[in-house]
Amino acid sequence: MGVKLGILGLGTVGTGTVQLLQDKIDRHPLLQEIEIYRVGVRSPNKPRQVELPAGVVTTDLEAIVNDPAIDIIVEVMGGLEPTRSLILTAIKNGKHVVTANKAVISRFGAEIFTAANAAGVYVMLEASVGGGIPVIQPLKQSLSVNQIHAITGIVNGTTNYILTRMQTEGSDFDDVLADAQSLGYAEADPTADVDGLDAADKIAILASLGFGGRINLADVYCEGIRQVSKTDIAYATKLGFVIKLLAIAKGQNHDRSQLSVRVHPTLVPQSHPLATINGVYNAILVEGEPIGQVMFFGPGAGAGATASAVCSDILNLVATLKTDTSKAHPLLACSHQHYCQISPISELVSRFYTRFLTKDQSGVIGKLGTIFGKYDVSLESVVQTGFQEQLAEIVVVTHDVKEGDFRKALAEIKNLAAIDSIPSILRVL
Amino acid sequence: MGVKLGILGLGTVGTGTVQLLQDKIDRHPLLQEIEIYRVGVRSPNKPRQVELPAGVVTTDLEAIVNDPAIDIIVEVMGGLEPTRSLILTAIKNGKHVVTANKAVISRFGAEIFTAANAAGVYVMLEASVGGGIPVIQPLKQSLSVNQIHAITGIVNGTTNYILTRMQTEGSDFDDVLADAQSLGYAEADPTADVDGLDAADKIAILASLGFGGRINLADVYCEGIRQVSKTDIAYATKLGFVIKLLAIAKGQNHDRSQLSVRVHPTLVPQSHPLATINGVYNAILVEGEPIGQVMFFGPGAGAGATASAVCSDILNLVATLKTDTSKAHPLLACSHQHYCQISPISELVSRFYTRFLTKDQSGVIGKLGTIFGKYDVSLESVVQTGFQEQLAEIVVVTHDVKEGDFRKALAEIKNLAAIDSIPSILRVL
Repeated sequence: MGVKLGILGLGTVGTGTVQLLQDKIDRHPLLQEIEIYRVGVRSPNKPRQVELPAGVVTTDLEAIVNDPAIDIIVEVMGGLEPTRSLILTAIKNGKHVVTANKAVISRFGAEIFTAANAAGVYVMLEASVGGGIPVIQPLKQSLSVNQIHAITGIVNGTTNYILTRMQTEGSDFDDVLADAQSLGYAEADPTADVDGLDAADKIAILASLGFGGRINLADVYCEGIRQVSKTDIAYATKLGFVIKLLAIAKGQNHDRSQLSVRVHPTLVPQSHPLATINGVYNAILVEGEPIGQVMFFGPGAGAGATASAVCSDILNLVATLKTDTSKAHPLLACSHQHYCQISPISELVSRFYTRFLTKDQSGVIGKLGTIFGKYDVSLESVVQTGFQEQLAEIVVVTHDVKEGDFRKALAEIKNLAAIDSIPSILRVL
Repeated sequence: MGVKLGILGLGTVGTGTVQLLQDKIDRHPLLQEIEIYRVGVRSPNKPRQVELPAGVVTTDLEAIVNDPAIDIIVEVMGGLEPTRSLILTAIKNGKHVVTANKAVISRFGAEIFTAANAAGVYVMLEASVGGGIPVIQPLKQSLSVNQIHAITGIVNGTTNYILTRMQTEGSDFDDVLADAQSLGYAEADPTADVDGLDAADKIAILASLGFGGRINLADVYCEGIRQVSKTDIAYATKLGFVIKLLAIAKGQNHDRSQLSVRVHPTLVPQSHPLATINGVYNAILVEGEPIGQVMFFGPGAGAGATASAVCSDILNLVATLKTDTSKAHPLLACSHQHYCQISPISELVSRFYTRFLTKDQSGVIGKLGTIFGKYDVSLESVVQTGFQEQLAEIVVVTHDVKEGDFRKALAEIKNLAAIDSIPSILRVL
């Protein structure tokens, strides 16, 4: 009678999921029909925050995905392997899958969804982006008739927390990172977060949904926040911007068939809806026609929020199973066949903020202007902002330029005798 | 083969809906399967912005809802009657319904959903709240496992536009209203908007979804923005607040079985996510467990945004019809049987902001304090802020107090010889 779950993993998200599924009082009545049938763990004797009946917990994950009694596999173990293989086996065995795993989906989504379509099962992934924020289902269903033009997100809580603290405290990246690590907001190895890899996985998934095609993760340009300095944050503030790590998927030159998909620290105008998203919160701004702008805001991580997304996906599957149909629901199944065309970053058209340290002030601005002009880089402002020791600091903001042209100009500028260094190059939204 | 629509109404939203349904290129492929079969209008010879094949447009709305060829009725004509009757006839005839009509749903929702359940059809209403913002479907599906504790929304664009302009320009209500009317942001008869009735309809719908029961619209407390003055906005700013017309549904004293559902101008802390929602934009903040806070932001009105919601509902129905099932989808059908218990406003526990004009300053603050104390009204601040002609102005902010107690204290204060008037009483979030 009930729907039987096989849960893979009992870490933070797995524990939150089991707790939520066990706490059925005053929640949706359909939760009553869900049975936690097996939970696969690596260390069966580890102390847990949840109690499960004898026989439910097992270390044999293969047995779970092969158990004919199980209807839905809930993958909350993370990692790439054996996760990918377990998901594929589950699908082959006709089981629906709920996953919170952006890394697996962004890398092996094509393989997984092709298998799911062949087997007639659904793969649900609301928890893979934005933690508890409903954004996958809105893109698949509530916004389904729109032509999506751009998706712009703050999708990594750790880096947003670090940038927010750098902004409010005037602190340096390294100091805030160390403190965030001691507080548990950043991992001991922070690479996936601070180098933008986690955000890249997520924007690949969002781009795929928004633009209706598969995304090759290797085509997603990715730049983290290690180079962002408190000096740049201070200048950005003076210029009317905050610095955010944005994940962006956008039609290149208003052309939805040629995308730019990228993650990088970005100067965001203070009046922009994403500018006020602070701390560990996430937000995803979707722009399309005819909808205009809609934004989804909420907790991007955490056991409870992520469990909300995982369990809502489970409930949606249970509801779909109740309709007792053999035909696939066109808005739940993945219909993408082709890969999206993604432009190289050199084709990007953007405004840029750049900070130069120069040895000798007289005539430098003129020389900069000449070289930028040569490469068609039109400047919005050039300001000599102050001195750092013996060096004059010059901040340049460009109009929209092609990134390739801008980089060529910078390469030539770097060779000027008057230029000591170019400590920061940031894109402007 | 295709799914046949009967559209009732060809005003702003109806025209936007037809335009979107006719513009299928580079949108969801499922749109190809939708046929605009009949469009019911009042004036067939009125010039229109859309072209429809001969025979599609008709003035016989009854014939549309009784036409056996039609699968889905799209109600975008507005008003209460004959709309309600047409919807009920359509349902009785086994047709699914998509509606943008908050007034009909908030008043006749019980009757309509009871009929829909009996007939085995769905009534979709994404466009009834928040224009194009996905909020109905997220509440029904993506957040379905949560215990919702509170829904707080800016759900009326006209009043938010007026309050934003009063705030930024320091203008008076009447002047901004007149200008908003001339710009088309407010109706010639602005009652439904500025007196909060439109917002009351919408929060009744959201409360019903969030708290899983029916809402008696008469129990929704409703207060508009006519009494909000530029003086109060200026004081609110000094105290760290902005004034917004909020629609709130909340468990009374953390008890989900006893609700407070209300619309009133509110002092919102400047750091609150809703404080920065300006102009005609809407936003709905949903708080629950375990999700925490999520917010949905976007255009609350307009032909394109509303058409996005209407057409996405249509597409969801078409997708569901494709699964060819006879069993109802438990998350799409309405499962509410009982009415929610709603407390009278006198039971509300809130902070209050009140402005007094007093004839004679000496000792007045002491007298206010004594009377408030008598009724257990604890004060956070009492400030004599200045003079208006011969009268001293005193602004009081309370701690959380029961509204009934606060009103009793005010009634007694009003009788003090020193009190000239109490021009504003506003709740504080």
